[in-house]
Amino acid sequence: MQDFYPTRTSSPQPMIKRREPIIHGGAGFLSQQQLQRYERDGFLVIEDFLPPSETQQFLRDLDAYQQDSTFIQRPEVIAEPNEQSIRSIFAIHTLSERFKTLVRDQRLLSLARQITGDDVYVHQSRLNDKPAFVGKGFNWHSDFETWHAEDGMPAMRAFSVSIMLTDNQPHNGPLMLIPGSHRWFVPTMGKTPANNWQTSLKNQQIGVPDAESLRELTAGVDSEQAVPGVHVPSSKAGSLLIFDCNVLHASSDNLSPWPRRNLFFVYNSIHNRLQAPFAADRPRPEYLATREPVALRAADARSVTKA
Amino acid sequence: MQDFYPTRTSSPQPMIKRREPIIHGGAGFLSQQQLQRYERDGFLVIEDFLPPSETQQFLRDLDAYQQDSTFIQRPEVIAEPNEQSIRSIFAIHTLSERFKTLVRDQRLLSLARQITGDDVYVHQSRLNDKPAFVGKGFNWHSDFETWHAEDGMPAMRAFSVSIMLTDNQPHNGPLMLIPGSHRWFVPTMGKTPANNWQTSLKNQQIGVPDAESLRELTAGVDSEQAVPGVHVPSSKAGSLLIFDCNVLHASSDNLSPWPRRNLFFVYNSIHNRLQAPFAADRPRPEYLATREPVALRAADARSVTKA
Repeated sequence: MQDFYPTRTSSPQPMIKRREPIIHGGAGFLSQQQLQRYERDGFLVIEDFLPPSETQQFLRDLDAYQQDSTFIQRPEVIAEPNEQSIRSIFAIHTLSERFKTLVRDQRLLSLARQITGDDVYVHQSRLNDKPAFVGKGFNWHSDFETWHAEDGMPAMRAFSVSIMLTDNQPHNGPLMLIPGSHRWFVPTMGKTPANNWQTSLKNQQIGVPDAESLRELTAGVDSEQAVPGVHVPSSKAGSLLIFDCNVLHASSDNLSPWPRRNLFFVYNSIHNRLQAPFAADRPRPEYLATREPVALRAADARSVTKA
Repeated sequence: MQDFYPTRTSSPQPMIKRREPIIHGGAGFLSQQQLQRYERDGFLVIEDFLPPSETQQFLRDLDAYQQDSTFIQRPEVIAEPNEQSIRSIFAIHTLSERFKTLVRDQRLLSLARQITGDDVYVHQSRLNDKPAFVGKGFNWHSDFETWHAEDGMPAMRAFSVSIMLTDNQPHNGPLMLIPGSHRWFVPTMGKTPANNWQTSLKNQQIGVPDAESLRELTAGVDSEQAVPGVHVPSSKAGSLLIFDCNVLHASSDNLSPWPRRNLFFVYNSIHNRLQAPFAADRPRPEYLATREPVALRAADARSVTKA
């Protein structure tokens, strides 16, 4: 299969204009105005997506995982560099009926069809639990760059939703995004080491765009009306952030006395299934990247507290 | 001399209620309302303190220092952990006539008298130049805790001003402060190592308050009406931040493509001069802590561009 987005190169390469549309579908849960905004910026925040009763139920579930001392040793669980706190839990939508129901929320599947124009499956799901005081940040990256290089995702027909289980504020290491950056693919330099994900999920070094491209994109190169710069959504627990697979983002350490806990679900078009990795020796484990897609059907009940 | 604020202890110690008033003086550059706010929160932001022509002149001065490759080897200059970028320049008010004039700005000396009720001298001055991408943060600390332990500052009759030379925004590692925390002294644990400042100015480990005290103070223990939590002033270049010597603060890494450059001047009452360090073997160098105070007299002209 032809590689339209070569990356992990041995010499600096220019940015590549995105080939795929950002929005593939039509009407649904998102209004026309919301879709336009998402198309322009590469992300969109929707407040009050989950009521407090539901976010608190999920936090209780996560507390239970934290208190289970064997849990951190599971392969799906990535520890903080200090090795004592949970940084990420992957494949979280397979952990309980409640998460399984949430990933099939009718509203999420409706907007997934609007964005991808297709049936979707869960390419990846995770909880990023950035613990108080010790939670470390994430360097600048495009998710698609990793999924293309290390998982073999051929095209940009995927996106993420982040459901904020705690408030995301300037002081607890919130997500920072570069509006308009989703229109450009930034090839990164350096060969992917074997089992790169074992270190990259703690502290990413490979797959980080160069400083010059970051400067260009934050200055707003061909950003089609997106306001250039860096945007830091400051949102209450229960908010939903929808973001394109190729929008550049990063986050700082959490120095605050409060954890910052966000759920992430990645939806991919059923017609964009994974190939051999484009820039890695072998695929990552199934819990990081689904290779046997099953199209999602909407859950019966919206309320996850009933699950 | 009696030590009212024992710190760097070998066992956990409870917080100590501040003995000194926060405001010692009367009318001056700050309005009564501004003084009340400063007294309540422990800090205050004043927008448009310097016009763009002046902040840009200072930035040009700093660029010249950056471009001088021998400059980073000076003892007053602290490098980032990567050793290639400037993190801090101390004693900056002695570097040029322009900085010397700014530290004597009539408005600054007026508010210094309002706060300390006394003649003041420069206990310390510095530029914190948090460079783009690689600028590292500062862990939680009270400046007074360090100045008391390592410099021998006896009482809380000092404060800092931070003059923002670039915009301070949520994404470039801005200062985070805990409103009301200036009313409590948090003793920290651990003996001060010899020459601690050589590492602490890059990455502070000793002198960091415990998690429980940080949780209590952000929850608003006896904070006299200060809104509890963590406050992150988001201010334009040219703004002035005034903050008490004992207010707890921290800052995150700067992951943005822009430097975050702030000037800091610390004013101390001439009657609060340094003693032997209260919790260190020997005093830090003169460029970190002035031991021979000279009371400041206001500069003739306000405009530093004329200097």
